[in-house]
Amino acid sequence: MAKGLPKRSDDYSAWYNELVKKADLAENSAVRGCMVIKPYGYAIWEKMQQTLDKMFKDTGHSNAYFPLLIPKSYLSKEADHVDGFAKECAVVTHYRLKNAEDGSGVVVDPEAKLDEELIVRPTSETVIWSTYKNWIQSYRDLPLLVNQWANVMRWEMRTRLFLRTSEFLWQEGHTAHATKDEAVAETKQMLEVYADFAENFMGVPVVKGVKTANERFAGAVDTFCIEAMMQDGKALQAGTSHFLGQNFAKAFDVKFSDKDNKLEHVWGTSWGVSTRLMGALIMAHSDDEGLVLPPKLAPIQVVIVPIYKGQEQLDAISEKAKEIQKALQALNISVKFDDRDSLRPGFKFADWELKGVPVRIAMGQRDLENGTVEIARRDTKEKNTHQLDGVVETVQQLLDEIQAAIYNKALDYRESHITKVENFDEFKDVLENKGGFIAAHWDGTTETEEKIKDLTKATIRCIPLNNEQEEGTCILTGKPSTQRVLFAKAY
Amino acid sequence: MAKGLPKRSDDYSAWYNELVKKADLAENSAVRGCMVIKPYGYAIWEKMQQTLDKMFKDTGHSNAYFPLLIPKSYLSKEADHVDGFAKECAVVTHYRLKNAEDGSGVVVDPEAKLDEELIVRPTSETVIWSTYKNWIQSYRDLPLLVNQWANVMRWEMRTRLFLRTSEFLWQEGHTAHATKDEAVAETKQMLEVYADFAENFMGVPVVKGVKTANERFAGAVDTFCIEAMMQDGKALQAGTSHFLGQNFAKAFDVKFSDKDNKLEHVWGTSWGVSTRLMGALIMAHSDDEGLVLPPKLAPIQVVIVPIYKGQEQLDAISEKAKEIQKALQALNISVKFDDRDSLRPGFKFADWELKGVPVRIAMGQRDLENGTVEIARRDTKEKNTHQLDGVVETVQQLLDEIQAAIYNKALDYRESHITKVENFDEFKDVLENKGGFIAAHWDGTTETEEKIKDLTKATIRCIPLNNEQEEGTCILTGKPSTQRVLFAKAY
Repeated sequence: MAKGLPKRSDDYSAWYNELVKKADLAENSAVRGCMVIKPYGYAIWEKMQQTLDKMFKDTGHSNAYFPLLIPKSYLSKEADHVDGFAKECAVVTHYRLKNAEDGSGVVVDPEAKLDEELIVRPTSETVIWSTYKNWIQSYRDLPLLVNQWANVMRWEMRTRLFLRTSEFLWQEGHTAHATKDEAVAETKQMLEVYADFAENFMGVPVVKGVKTANERFAGAVDTFCIEAMMQDGKALQAGTSHFLGQNFAKAFDVKFSDKDNKLEHVWGTSWGVSTRLMGALIMAHSDDEGLVLPPKLAPIQVVIVPIYKGQEQLDAISEKAKEIQKALQALNISVKFDDRDSLRPGFKFADWELKGVPVRIAMGQRDLENGTVEIARRDTKEKNTHQLDGVVETVQQLLDEIQAAIYNKALDYRESHITKVENFDEFKDVLENKGGFIAAHWDGTTETEEKIKDLTKATIRCIPLNNEQEEGTCILTGKPSTQRVLFAKAY
Repeated sequence: MAKGLPKRSDDYSAWYNELVKKADLAENSAVRGCMVIKPYGYAIWEKMQQTLDKMFKDTGHSNAYFPLLIPKSYLSKEADHVDGFAKECAVVTHYRLKNAEDGSGVVVDPEAKLDEELIVRPTSETVIWSTYKNWIQSYRDLPLLVNQWANVMRWEMRTRLFLRTSEFLWQEGHTAHATKDEAVAETKQMLEVYADFAENFMGVPVVKGVKTANERFAGAVDTFCIEAMMQDGKALQAGTSHFLGQNFAKAFDVKFSDKDNKLEHVWGTSWGVSTRLMGALIMAHSDDEGLVLPPKLAPIQVVIVPIYKGQEQLDAISEKAKEIQKALQALNISVKFDDRDSLRPGFKFADWELKGVPVRIAMGQRDLENGTVEIARRDTKEKNTHQLDGVVETVQQLLDEIQAAIYNKALDYRESHITKVENFDEFKDVLENKGGFIAAHWDGTTETEEKIKDLTKATIRCIPLNNEQEEGTCILTGKPSTQRVLFAKAY
């Protein structure tokens, strides 16, 4: 167990909080609810960004940048949208400070009051659709496929590093289309991109589904989502893709002339993932020794630790180690050779375990004599002695194995934690004693959904896509239902 | 001349403003002084970012992310810093809106007033040094080499797209060192990185120098800069690298224990370039037909335009064109095949000239018969017919030639626009009738510097590094001087 890291079984929540700090991922800042993402944490986020950015471009999207500040009046133009975001936004009211007359520092200059207050974007639909109005005239301007990487701010009352912070980093795609079908297809395509990324890069299996009206994005017609399961059985919404219908086009009067020269409102989508994914990544795989990172997103994929006494041994081991490092780097594998002289090997092992480096190679004097190395994998902690010959191929293969193993382990856990229940007693029992996703019948009303949430803290995570249709009765009201939905406690 | 684009010789300023809009680089937003960076403009910025980011990493820096909002009191901790930034910052005073009682929309909720106002970062020294206090204890924690890509906000009264906007995108490096020498070396290293980027990627020659006390960054001991010359003879500061001494370490009490266990304040640097570079890139090279982009930063390096009548000709040309496209892409050259059917070749030619694509390949029916293509370069507008055989090598070589030619052209212009003057009459004459940089003696006082600025609008751009030492007398006061400094009107 890493020094000072609580055990998951003792206090999952404390384990997560401490892990984020001890592994140098992020920390709280002096500004309430805003985090500092530290270099090691940011390096993981950069790998996520690069991967996603390529996926967005491969599906025809371009990046752009829209203003941070949004006129207050814009929010009100879409009725649901303003209800969803007005209550938690940072408001800029002045544009200047001045020296306090008593010399105590700076104060807001009352003469520099803005005519209209500006809010720090909580999301950018309003400012982007107000811009699209000028970009779109004809069907030839469509589809418009734009993404933005940006910071956004929602004044959350209870915050947790990565999972819920007042400021967070994200990407937000905003697309405009000539037809409803195209917009729906885009919404679903981006949901697939997110699921692909979560499963094949993060190693996190996800359920693809649609949100109930109650959990829908403020301003959307339909919100699709990917839901992941953490090791404590709680759900984490990892990405959302919204079909906006013509809501924002109508709010901002965005029309196009179609091929028959008829003026129509444009159809829209928006979709986003955020630094919240960092929280999902950490909680899905890590253990009591520290982070477990999937090789595809690990900033350092392999660490080489020399075990030596004196400079002569170090020199001899370094020579071999650097050969291995070079050969691995030639295959685009990132390798750290940890020759810090002031630290013992045991400390280094624990440090790199804490940081989640997937593969560790250790090399001592005896290895040098025997032409061997010790290779340890982070996820299972298996260690084996390997011949130096072929070590590069072994490591390369091992990284692929680890990527697959991490995913399969998370999948096994999830599959064994989806439980069908038939009545409310069973529901409460499973929720309390087992956790995970609960597949249950629900009568389809927001009222029942809210009541279940009040009674149990569980929410409907989603109605899975391609859900099996099945006659049943609502676990709370006994009213008829045609399909099960997934309930869970969620982050 | 591109449709509606003013000539540089008629109105350089209007030419720039229109070019930025017509080439789809950026536009003004509804929020005063804040711009929208459009996809084509953002694609250029992305290329800049990628190149610089690699250069920063190659010199040992890591990326991180610090909060957008800064407690008001932080600004005051460094005396010069607060004077420099307090007068132009956006201030967040509330964290919630509520529905207006008269139903007219949303208003600021007076109950949600912050205890301490927060400012939107104009630069991040204060929030970063308050964080470094906890990251640095010992000499082993140094040097700390961190960079951040972020948006910042300075409430500018007169704004121009890319050149001066209230919100802009930038990177800001913030490093901490154990000794003064190391910090000075870092400051100069990053200046070299910026100069390398400007000259070898942007194709913009720069003068490296140090700022006078008057033009120094608020809180720095020394500000180094790269100064570029635009086609109208005006200067543009393209990047700055600041030696902060121990100013911020003292303001935020950041100390480390050295090898002898003695507590010392840390030495600091900060350095940044911003979307202002987009303005420099546009103004340094472009012409009355539109953008001229250096191949290394052009989102599209080659465009292929088919010239055809009817589907049969198009099919035959497309087949050949796509072969060329594929072969060029295999060499990492980005190629657009413009087969838009509703537009004439002449329109397409003008469109890609406006967008600054460095090489255009045109292919018609006769070319197909003769096994030739027409290759045109954007910078000189030279056109030549080439055999299809070897076209890939020709294009590859041409891109290198264009990159060099653009730089050399800008260099020739600059070299012919650096003028030595010996008295104030000459100074005013050159400034009015020729422009460019003026190398003149100055008595070293802020008073004289300000007076010259008031009289002529010219400022001291920098004291060039490795400046020749030479006895002389100040052009304004006649007082003795030991070196010439560079004056110019500036953006």
